[in-house]
Amino acid sequence: MEKSTPIGIIGGLGLIYGAIFMGVGWQTFFDVPSIVLVLGGTLASLLVSFSMDEMKQVVPSLKGFFSFSAPDLSSYVHDFAELSRTARRDGLLALDRSIAELEDDFMSFGLQMAVDGIEEEAIEKLMDLKVKEDLKPRTFIAKFFITAGTYCPAFGMIGTLIGLIQMLQNLTDPSQIGAGMSMALITTFYGALFSNLIFLPMADKMQTQVSEVRRAGKMIQTGVLSIVQGDGPSMVEKRLSLYLGDTADGEKGKTPDLAKAA
Amino acid sequence: MEKSTPIGIIGGLGLIYGAIFMGVGWQTFFDVPSIVLVLGGTLASLLVSFSMDEMKQVVPSLKGFFSFSAPDLSSYVHDFAELSRTARRDGLLALDRSIAELEDDFMSFGLQMAVDGIEEEAIEKLMDLKVKEDLKPRTFIAKFFITAGTYCPAFGMIGTLIGLIQMLQNLTDPSQIGAGMSMALITTFYGALFSNLIFLPMADKMQTQVSEVRRAGKMIQTGVLSIVQGDGPSMVEKRLSLYLGDTADGEKGKTPDLAKAA
Amino acid sequence: MEKSTPIGIIGGLGLIYGAIFMGVGWQTFFDVPSIVLVLGGTLASLLVSFSMDEMKQVVPSLKGFFSFSAPDLSSYVHDFAELSRTARRDGLLALDRSIAELEDDFMSFGLQMAVDGIEEEAIEKLMDLKVKEDLKPRTFIAKFFITAGTYCPAFGMIGTLIGLIQMLQNLTDPSQIGAGMSMALITTFYGALFSNLIFLPMADKMQTQVSEVRRAGKMIQTGVLSIVQGDGPSMVEKRLSLYLGDTADGEKGKTPDLAKAA
Amino acid sequence: MEKSTPIGIIGGLGLIYGAIFMGVGWQTFFDVPSIVLVLGGTLASLLVSFSMDEMKQVVPSLKGFFSFSAPDLSSYVHDFAELSRTARRDGLLALDRSIAELEDDFMSFGLQMAVDGIEEEAIEKLMDLKVKEDLKPRTFIAKFFITAGTYCPAFGMIGTLIGLIQMLQNLTDPSQIGAGMSMALITTFYGALFSNLIFLPMADKMQTQVSEVRRAGKMIQTGVLSIVQGDGPSMVEKRLSLYLGDTADGEKGKTPDLAKAA
Amino acid sequence: MEKSTPIGIIGGLGLIYGAIFMGVGWQTFFDVPSIVLVLGGTLASLLVSFSMDEMKQVVPSLKGFFSFSAPDLSSYVHDFAELSRTARRDGLLALDRSIAELEDDFMSFGLQMAVDGIEEEAIEKLMDLKVKEDLKPRTFIAKFFITAGTYCPAFGMIGTLIGLIQMLQNLTDPSQIGAGMSMALITTFYGALFSNLIFLPMADKMQTQVSEVRRAGKMIQTGVLSIVQGDGPSMVEKRLSLYLGDTADGEKGKTPDLAKAA
Repeated sequence: MEKSTPIGIIGGLGLIYGAIFMGVGWQTFFDVPSIVLVLGGTLASLLVSFSMDEMKQVVPSLKGFFSFSAPDLSSYVHDFAELSRTARRDGLLALDRSIAELEDDFMSFGLQMAVDGIEEEAIEKLMDLKVKEDLKPRTFIAKFFITAGTYCPAFGMIGTLIGLIQMLQNLTDPSQIGAGMSMALITTFYGALFSNLIFLPMADKMQTQVSEVRRAGKMIQTGVLSIVQGDGPSMVEKRLSLYLGDTADGEKGKTPDLAKAA
Repeated sequence: MEKSTPIGIIGGLGLIYGAIFMGVGWQTFFDVPSIVLVLGGTLASLLVSFSMDEMKQVVPSLKGFFSFSAPDLSSYVHDFAELSRTARRDGLLALDRSIAELEDDFMSFGLQMAVDGIEEEAIEKLMDLKVKEDLKPRTFIAKFFITAGTYCPAFGMIGTLIGLIQMLQNLTDPSQIGAGMSMALITTFYGALFSNLIFLPMADKMQTQVSEVRRAGKMIQTGVLSIVQGDGPSMVEKRLSLYLGDTADGEKGKTPDLAKAA
Repeated sequence: MEKSTPIGIIGGLGLIYGAIFMGVGWQTFFDVPSIVLVLGGTLASLLVSFSMDEMKQVVPSLKGFFSFSAPDLSSYVHDFAELSRTARRDGLLALDRSIAELEDDFMSFGLQMAVDGIEEEAIEKLMDLKVKEDLKPRTFIAKFFITAGTYCPAFGMIGTLIGLIQMLQNLTDPSQIGAGMSMALITTFYGALFSNLIFLPMADKMQTQVSEVRRAGKMIQTGVLSIVQGDGPSMVEKRLSLYLGDTADGEKGKTPDLAKAA
Repeated sequence: MEKSTPIGIIGGLGLIYGAIFMGVGWQTFFDVPSIVLVLGGTLASLLVSFSMDEMKQVVPSLKGFFSFSAPDLSSYVHDFAELSRTARRDGLLALDRSIAELEDDFMSFGLQMAVDGIEEEAIEKLMDLKVKEDLKPRTFIAKFFITAGTYCPAFGMIGTLIGLIQMLQNLTDPSQIGAGMSMALITTFYGALFSNLIFLPMADKMQTQVSEVRRAGKMIQTGVLSIVQGDGPSMVEKRLSLYLGDTADGEKGKTPDLAKAA
Repeated sequence: MEKSTPIGIIGGLGLIYGAIFMGVGWQTFFDVPSIVLVLGGTLASLLVSFSMDEMKQVVPSLKGFFSFSAPDLSSYVHDFAELSRTARRDGLLALDRSIAELEDDFMSFGLQMAVDGIEEEAIEKLMDLKVKEDLKPRTFIAKFFITAGTYCPAFGMIGTLIGLIQMLQNLTDPSQIGAGMSMALITTFYGALFSNLIFLPMADKMQTQVSEVRRAGKMIQTGVLSIVQGDGPSMVEKRLSLYLGDTADGEKGKTPDLAKAA
């Protein structure tokens, strides 16, 4: 579950609108036509940028975004050590039974190829390809949000230009200048807010998800290839436990040692 | 057929001009001399940026842009499995007949080389080169639109500077200040609108087309090389179906599994 | 001959100054001190950016820029097929006579090495190196124009700041405000115009020239290596004609086929 | 110990606030609500950008940031020469005893694999992976600060927009315009100051730390592989002392020589 | 000797201040507190960005910057041809005597390894590493100037914000508005001037020096490896003279030929 995203967005909006409520004229900051102009313009640019097929993927892919939880890498170490013990003792073919019990599709995919006797290099390539293809919805969403975050302030500025041009034509009534200009600036405000609080940070988060899945995939690939190469349980564990380096004690124990000893 | 592009452009213009019509002075927003200045200046910069030969490619390449439809990758899986069955049974030379019936030029190109006995590595290189060369009109158009999208706001700003400088020289009549400034801002408005609704998003779309064609090319290349290496139909299918990973059920079924199991 | 560059620059200036003449106060837009400030400041930054030796290369390299005409790639296909026929029939040494008649220095360079019996890999490396070195004046000029296009608007802004600061000190005479400010903005106008109509687009064009020469070099290299590897005329033609993919019929015939069939 | 970071931040703040105290109205520059808006908004965007797990790493990783001291590379040269002497004389297995005495975890990690007879290529890969994994907290913090430095000015601008819009609605009391606008600009001031004095420079520094640790890791890897390949002490020293090139005398003695002689 | 750098900086400052002297109120443009604010703030950010050890390298590295003269590549061609003749006639060991007489440290470094019988691949790697390490002071200075050129305009803007905020609080005396605003803009002027005339162009120049030294290093490496491979003098000359391609006649003779013949 993605918790920090709603906390950040709701907290940020709360903070900004809290500041607005403490000042005067908060009604100005709830201007539906301005929101429609900024988000509608952004949506139009997104339609030009992406194909219909891609646009249809957005909503389903967003579900995957919010339901994402970081892979628990530590469980892989034990699993692969166990599998390598079996493979060493009873041969690669003996893994066939274990595969059926695996919950992780990508692990089964790799191990099945090992059992089928496909050669190492092909396994490596096909696993790389599979990770890349499986990640396509996520990398697409990251790109989608970056694009949204780029066009959104542009339509904020376009809205402000429209407002300014209209206001400047009616300078005869000076009492309206302030109100006109403040309305004009609202779209810039929305453009900046949506882009910097929602679109661009969500693209960042999606890229983090992508790199975590890729990392888990790399770890599983390392495990599968290690088994194919006939490594024993301790070597498999050694290889895989390197991927845990950034968890609690790893973080404290490792890099500083390098620096300290140096 | 490229549907989302006209929907996005027309929808975006509709939205923006709808907002304009709801305000005062919409006549200002139809200023032909300003459009000529912004698009003409952009065209001038494009002429300096590209050669005459490249400029002549723009219109024909645009036709390819609008008539583009994403390659239907799933059909390749079956086709190649069939071809691999033939090759396994009757030898590579037996493919000669099948090639004549293929609709896809790139598939025939690759398979013909396989039948001609050209070695694997050369087939790989030549197929890579052919994809790259065939994509040149599209990559050129993507670059063309990015360049247009870069210079367009610059000429918008140049137009505004001209208007401002002229207006500032006539400050003696204050009633003209607003009108002058609003006219001056129109070019900035056009520059931002053309760039963010048309040029840059179309460059994005073109790059999506490029990557879809490249992906189809990669898939066909994988199929051809798989046949050359003597893979059986099931292995060919396994390899090629990885490229379908981002379609409907693949999207739901695969990456989340990796995450869930982790 | 580089035709589109002068057309673009003259056309662009004509358009911009046409718009200026249609308004009032066109004299303001011919301000020699402002041009001197913007171009002089840019030149000063270029002197800091590049060495004296590089600065001396600018004018001679510009001649190469304007006299450039795109290599006619199609002639190479026939030439290399002919050479490969000779090589196949009479041996590589028989090419010695043909080399003397070649007009293209780079072809002779590569073929001479083939005749001298230098091994394939060394020929490839040396041809790569020669293309890279031969292109140095052009890549330098591209970098020179990008640099000029970066500093030019900066000095436009510096000029405007000077004008603004001076004007703001004399606010006592309000009738001068407009004139002072309009003068101040002229340098920003020049900076934007020179950068976006001349410097940056010329850098784009130069990079196009670079990639066309590199492409021709790659094609010649492919031809030479193909001959060294003993390919027959039809194979040489097959390889080289891939480089013609973006000309008239190639453009229509190929990529769309891939998409259509898919 | 990281000394220049606090010196720079405190010195910079001292300079800026010194300039502020010399002018009028310094109270404006201590506006807690504005600071809360800018930093709170930045924090909200960071929460959207990063996962909760990553956010929890920030404080512990910052400790590593301030306690960092550059690895003393010169000590490695002697250590590895000594180890290579032992290995040459008594065989790789004889290193087992020396490893226990090593203070540097990464050296032990590499040498232990050498003693265990793991093959060269695997040692290289695993050492690469370990450096990369050990550096994850630091590369994360660098990315965290870059992200903070990107969103911080954006929320400064959003705060200014809010202030401007509110002020423009109350133009009826002209005496308040100045005060309102000056308040509005305070958030832009904070955004620019935090970003350019704290966040972005700290990201720079963190990246320097990353490249120093990576460099030390590369040097240790070179040493381990050199021993595995059976290099003698003088060759090991030759290889490793190249990494000292940027210390005092190296800096004077080497590159200029190349230039001078040239 | 680096001549164009002082010419550019002094010329640029002369031009800018010449323009200032021709206008009114030139005293405003010599404002020591503003210079202190902009450069001091930049220095503070640099202290946060770099470590103390790096900051201490700046001044010594700057000496190397100004005393730099481009390596005279043509002399290497002759030297290496001579050395290759000796090596061919009397064997690699005979080079031992010649090495002692070499003025170029990097040449001796490479040839000594050749004489010591170190294998080709190791020589290549160690020479690569040595060039990279020897260039560290220069690449650092380039990065230092880019960083300075990035933060300098930011502190110019921060200074202007301070000035604006202070001025806006005292709008009651309208006669002071102009003077206050003109003072406020001075820091932006300094930030833009220092960044665009000094810091960023000096980073460009430093990168040119880096690539010239790297090029000379590559040429020497090619020469050493050519000798190790047993190439004769004519082949060595052929290889090395490719690096001279951008000098006077090379520039005219080569690329255009490729284009012309094409």
